[in-house]
Amino acid sequence: MAAFARRKAQRLARPDPSRKRALDPRAAGLVRLLNARERFCTASSCDGRVTLTDTGGAGVQKKNCTWLLVTHDPCDKGDVMTALEKATGDAVFKFEPFVLHVLCRELQDAQLLHSVAIDSGFRNSGITVGKGGKITMAVRSTHCLEVPLSHKGRLMVSEEYIEFLVRVANQKMEENIRRIDRFHKGLELALEAADAAEPPFPQGPEKNSVYVHRRKRRTAREQGGPSTEMGAQDDTDSSLDLFAEITI
Amino acid sequence: MAAFARRKAQRLARPDPSRKRALDPRAAGLVRLLNARERFCTASSCDGRVTLTDTGGAGVQKKNCTWLLVTHDPCDKGDVMTALEKATGDAVFKFEPFVLHVLCRELQDAQLLHSVAIDSGFRNSGITVGKGGKITMAVRSTHCLEVPLSHKGRLMVSEEYIEFLVRVANQKMEENIRRIDRFHKGLELALEAADAAEPPFPQGPEKNSVYVHRRKRRTAREQGGPSTEMGAQDDTDSSLDLFAEITI
Repeated sequence: MAAFARRKAQRLARPDPSRKRALDPRAAGLVRLLNARERFCTASSCDGRVTLTDTGGAGVQKKNCTWLLVTHDPCDKGDVMTALEKATGDAVFKFEPFVLHVLCRELQDAQLLHSVAIDSGFRNSGITVGKGGKITMAVRSTHCLEVPLSHKGRLMVSEEYIEFLVRVANQKMEENIRRIDRFHKGLELALEAADAAEPPFPQGPEKNSVYVHRRKRRTAREQGGPSTEMGAQDDTDSSLDLFAEITI
Repeated sequence: MAAFARRKAQRLARPDPSRKRALDPRAAGLVRLLNARERFCTASSCDGRVTLTDTGGAGVQKKNCTWLLVTHDPCDKGDVMTALEKATGDAVFKFEPFVLHVLCRELQDAQLLHSVAIDSGFRNSGITVGKGGKITMAVRSTHCLEVPLSHKGRLMVSEEYIEFLVRVANQKMEENIRRIDRFHKGLELALEAADAAEPPFPQGPEKNSVYVHRRKRRTAREQGGPSTEMGAQDDTDSSLDLFAEITI
């Protein structure tokens, strides 16, 4: 636990390594919610974006792509057409949905996030457990577009198609935003329920420890327990099971 | 462990639930490799495929899409054009890469698969740990195409574009096959090394248990240890660490 706390403090002290040097607005809310809790530390995030990249010549590796356009907001046909004029290689239009990586103190913390992510529609979410025990939960979705538009600098589609494509991308962006909001609400409820259910940190023999544990469970039940956002978990007892039933 | 063995036996006894009722050829090799070992049980797989789906009308849900074309082999422009003639709604062309889901007996088994998957290029791979402790590793990639082609039955691109798109999809399929082969080889090596390193299953007090353990480690080292396909793991001792260092 101490090692996780140290790693978290170091990570949060670093400057934002992304191109933008700032969090996307929706991700920012989630990042604050998670980092306020000792057991989570966010690593990287993106609200979702539309991009236009160009290989700019034959045989250029993906990492050497030129970025002609990046937007986290609904995109505009005019902007895409203008960006395409600069393409000299193979230009590809993409919509990429919300992504969030979270370091978790314990496996059950990752399970909690994973459950909420899946219920919110982020069906490609998954946990990584590194060799040293580092646990990461990645919130991911399949909900994307990847459309080659030009070849060796020559545009292969009409302006009318670009307009159609931009409309489709913007619809996907709207659905993406709905999912982020669902995830945020689900996470708030799940974290509140988990906090209410958590037994006090052991600090020595407690005569009344069983009584305290039962009292917290009853309080959580009175508060309504975990949201149905968590899928199969309907009450506090189930969320306690989440902490107990990990067979390794 | 007994519960896992029972679940595996039940699953393998079921008929194949996929549309095809049979395994894709490359997945079949991997499935055999994994199911031959007690600690793994494959759940679902797909070599990778090109599909053309059609909403066939306004507001139809994704699950009600019509499948106009599915192929796991390089696709042909003529087949795509023929399939598109049947589209009455919004037709979408997709390339989806290799996917494999594997139930794992213990978390370190999932970690082994995950490490090989990432090293092979399947960068969206991740572990799921269900509430009852069920551990699944999903091998996944970002390497895809999703291209809307028609709107309300009207084709929005030229035949020349379809030819270009088919070429791009086939290149992605070739890369996908290379990654599957890399994954298969990496997995064979990692599993051999892990088998060589594994201490004998405890069957009662063993006077010479420490000696036996050391002898197996030396044998594994003489055999060359884990492949560099596993990334940071360079010798048998590291693969033993894989079994030890899970902090929960």
